[in-house]
Amino acid sequence: MQFPDQIRYDENGLVPVVVQDQESARVLMLAYMNHAALEQTLATRRVTYWSRSRQAFWVKGATSGFVQHVREVYVNCENNSLLILVEQVGAACHEGYRSCYFRRVSDDGEALETVDTRLVDPY
Amino acid sequence: MQFPDQIRYDENGLVPVVVQDQESARVLMLAYMNHAALEQTLATRRVTYWSRSRQAFWVKGATSGFVQHVREVYVNCENNSLLILVEQVGAACHEGYRSCYFRRVSDDGEALETVDTRLVDPY
Repeated sequence: MQFPDQIRYDENGLVPVVVQDQESARVLMLAYMNHAALEQTLATRRVTYWSRSRQAFWVKGATSGFVQHVREVYVNCENNSLLILVEQVGAACHEGYRSCYFRRVSDDGEALETVDTRLVDPY
Repeated sequence: MQFPDQIRYDENGLVPVVVQDQESARVLMLAYMNHAALEQTLATRRVTYWSRSRQAFWVKGATSGFVQHVREVYVNCENNSLLILVEQVGAACHEGYRSCYFRRVSDDGEALETVDTRLVDPY
């Protein structure tokens, strides 16, 4: 059985994908794939998601140039999430940060602190 | 506004949480929290999820002892996923592996290879 057929997609036909920078080991983002997006990702070795907001394929970096080259693909014990190690070009986050997780919660849970600097100005 | 109130939970009231080992930077697992589980996690500094299969709170390690101590909490740009850096005791995966992502997809997309060794025998 081909790998994409083994995944347990959710009620919307999607699987969450954690994307990690192979070089720095930073977690860059979390997004979703359907069966076809996963097939395309494996075939092209470039990460392609399914955009839930636009209900369309989303070839990461197609407009920005900030592509994600697939290096390693892992699946979890339950076959219901993926971890992809990538070579990230530029900023993974549409806000211009390397990682989408650029805000940290303060220890008292009251405040968010931006703990990274923008690579590019997205505006 | 308290941090848990700022999260955009999905249609089931859940937010996906990526859990990363602070020491090794390995991604350990992906699970879900609701508002109350997130509040409890922040208050106790021990990771508590909402189990979708059991529809119940799931204090990680409550039975196994393999608890997750919260070290840092990040939120993504869209306020719809979290990244928690933890001090992981023992095996994060119920299969006895350190990480749930212990199987790698071969480059041809045909096979899964187990690339880690069990810390404990779960059976």
